[in-house]
Amino acid sequence: MLFGKGQIASITAEIPASAKILVTYGGGSIKTNGVYDQVMSAVAGRQVMEFGGIEPNPRLETLMKAVELVRNEGIDFLLAVGGGSVIDGTKFIAAAVPFTGDPWDILAKTAPVKDALPLGVVLTIPATGSEMNTFSVVTKWETKDKLAFSSPLVYPRFSVLDPETTFSLPQKQIANGIVDAFTHVMEQYLTYPAHAPLQDRMAESILKTLIEIGPKTLADPKDYDARAIFMWCATMALNGLIGVGVPQDWSTHDIGHELTALHGLDHAQTLAIVLPSTMSVRRSSKWQKLLQYAERVWGIVDGTEEERVNEAIASTRNFFESVGVRTRLSDYGIGRETIPIIVERLEKRRQVALGEQQDVNPQVVEEILQLCG
Amino acid sequence: MLFGKGQIASITAEIPASAKILVTYGGGSIKTNGVYDQVMSAVAGRQVMEFGGIEPNPRLETLMKAVELVRNEGIDFLLAVGGGSVIDGTKFIAAAVPFTGDPWDILAKTAPVKDALPLGVVLTIPATGSEMNTFSVVTKWETKDKLAFSSPLVYPRFSVLDPETTFSLPQKQIANGIVDAFTHVMEQYLTYPAHAPLQDRMAESILKTLIEIGPKTLADPKDYDARAIFMWCATMALNGLIGVGVPQDWSTHDIGHELTALHGLDHAQTLAIVLPSTMSVRRSSKWQKLLQYAERVWGIVDGTEEERVNEAIASTRNFFESVGVRTRLSDYGIGRETIPIIVERLEKRRQVALGEQQDVNPQVVEEILQLCG
Repeated sequence: MLFGKGQIASITAEIPASAKILVTYGGGSIKTNGVYDQVMSAVAGRQVMEFGGIEPNPRLETLMKAVELVRNEGIDFLLAVGGGSVIDGTKFIAAAVPFTGDPWDILAKTAPVKDALPLGVVLTIPATGSEMNTFSVVTKWETKDKLAFSSPLVYPRFSVLDPETTFSLPQKQIANGIVDAFTHVMEQYLTYPAHAPLQDRMAESILKTLIEIGPKTLADPKDYDARAIFMWCATMALNGLIGVGVPQDWSTHDIGHELTALHGLDHAQTLAIVLPSTMSVRRSSKWQKLLQYAERVWGIVDGTEEERVNEAIASTRNFFESVGVRTRLSDYGIGRETIPIIVERLEKRRQVALGEQQDVNPQVVEEILQLCG
Repeated sequence: MLFGKGQIASITAEIPASAKILVTYGGGSIKTNGVYDQVMSAVAGRQVMEFGGIEPNPRLETLMKAVELVRNEGIDFLLAVGGGSVIDGTKFIAAAVPFTGDPWDILAKTAPVKDALPLGVVLTIPATGSEMNTFSVVTKWETKDKLAFSSPLVYPRFSVLDPETTFSLPQKQIANGIVDAFTHVMEQYLTYPAHAPLQDRMAESILKTLIEIGPKTLADPKDYDARAIFMWCATMALNGLIGVGVPQDWSTHDIGHELTALHGLDHAQTLAIVLPSTMSVRRSSKWQKLLQYAERVWGIVDGTEEERVNEAIASTRNFFESVGVRTRLSDYGIGRETIPIIVERLEKRRQVALGEQQDVNPQVVEEILQLCG
């Protein structure tokens, strides 16, 4: 992790001198905010090609063009410059290039990744944690399937986190990043007690810091310290640290991915919609952790257990709303007719036993989505 | 990190099949508690030699014998089985083997480590964090110099943490481990505010968990969960996580090393003696953090600022005493005549500007040691 202002320059020493590099990026905002220039200056004199246009929720169809380019040009190092979508897309490219057969099988059939190109990251959107983990989520546009894979071979060789690269981001992306990081923690934390008090406290540390710093970094985008703290929270939220040895949920993500695939919602918007309802519907199996979350994260100690749980769920929803991410399907013009479609899609893909206790069956998914209305 | 019961067996897959292995260990307790047998069974059929007798506060003189053995036998993989001393000693061996010149220069003259043998770890004493960091502390017995070095090249390739291997440890070693881990956190935490609220909260997470689990794991050595939680705390206390981007002190360690070198005290005993006095003498430059520590770690919110600071320092001393580690020089039969000797030794080694603000000069060291009486 190369953290701090000006750190993009240090990638020069991190990429082998003889490497043939492909710089990957998204919609091109890096060309207007100076990041592109900093990157190109750091790899000046190297063999460099570029591949732009990786979309949010990166599409298989787009990424396969990059795979072809890499194969044809003999590129042997990938440098992802962007947010989670660019990084996830680049991880897929890295694994797909040496893959024999249809690379979509890596996600659709969990075909093992046996080899991958090395990749580095220059992070410009704090949110997904992809800069410090082995995960990647890709969407097959043709069938609207949004699926994930994981492999240690696509773990970034280095990641640059320069808070200044985020100063020019739209507020919406920061707000989304706050919700994304917060929900990543919740998926690993809000389950059931598992003799892991240190992981619990570290998860609570991230949540409390996000609650404290989120509004601050939204209010003043050029507050370097606030942006740096937020950036580090987002990375720590999903780099494996708080999830070691504990049960994990991830059903909010599984359901949310369907909303993105079907309706084009931002990833974080889907989480803001699904998480509060998940907490509400599945409260009995998460009871102890909900009470702990209420007390330690929100300082809720008065009232009956039920009142505290309700207040904690309401606080979560209010927090998402307060940073500007709406939490109802209706806020996005989505009606209840989507519910049976989502349930059917999950069933078709045999995603019928979600959550930390594999008890989030189609009926529970429906109940959760009904509450999201 | 290979964490959990039975994990020693999995080192088979972590060590290259063709490796010529040297298993290093300490006083031989691993031969009576079953760890040695588990390790040997995991490397059965490989080329294996062994080197026992690495002492607590590992000595250069002993380690150089291992260096000679490794060089003569063409050993190319080191497997440290033990606690911090065995691991630190093995890190030194790893760096010393390919070193040209006198390997003590790595510590005495901070000669750069350019190459090192790969090493793996089977941890049996939770305390130092050496299983997940790049540090090593070695003592030159001839001159009683206890010095440290650090290199990414001696970062363990893997570490096995099986809580069951600690069930048979003497209570004293567990108590020492609690104090050691606690003080590691304090060295990185109790400085001055540095716009790092997440690192602060994570440090507090470790401290609170140690306070909670320390007495519990002492009371019931075979409580697997308590031992597992303690083991993970000790690792997280010094694996770099809570120290990123923040000022660090380490003067308690610097002074403590002298007490070990001169009087043979356990490392943790020296920390238990020096830390409370450091907190007391340097209170003004640590004021804000002392107040935060008082409130968040000990729940001290009543009284004047001075009263809260005093109570926090007293709580720290009481905690060390409560787990059975004494906190006064006199408890170990050491008189004040050692103070000028220590000050002189630090001055001779030009360690005259210790601490996070480099203001722990010989006069401050003397003041701290006077208070340790």
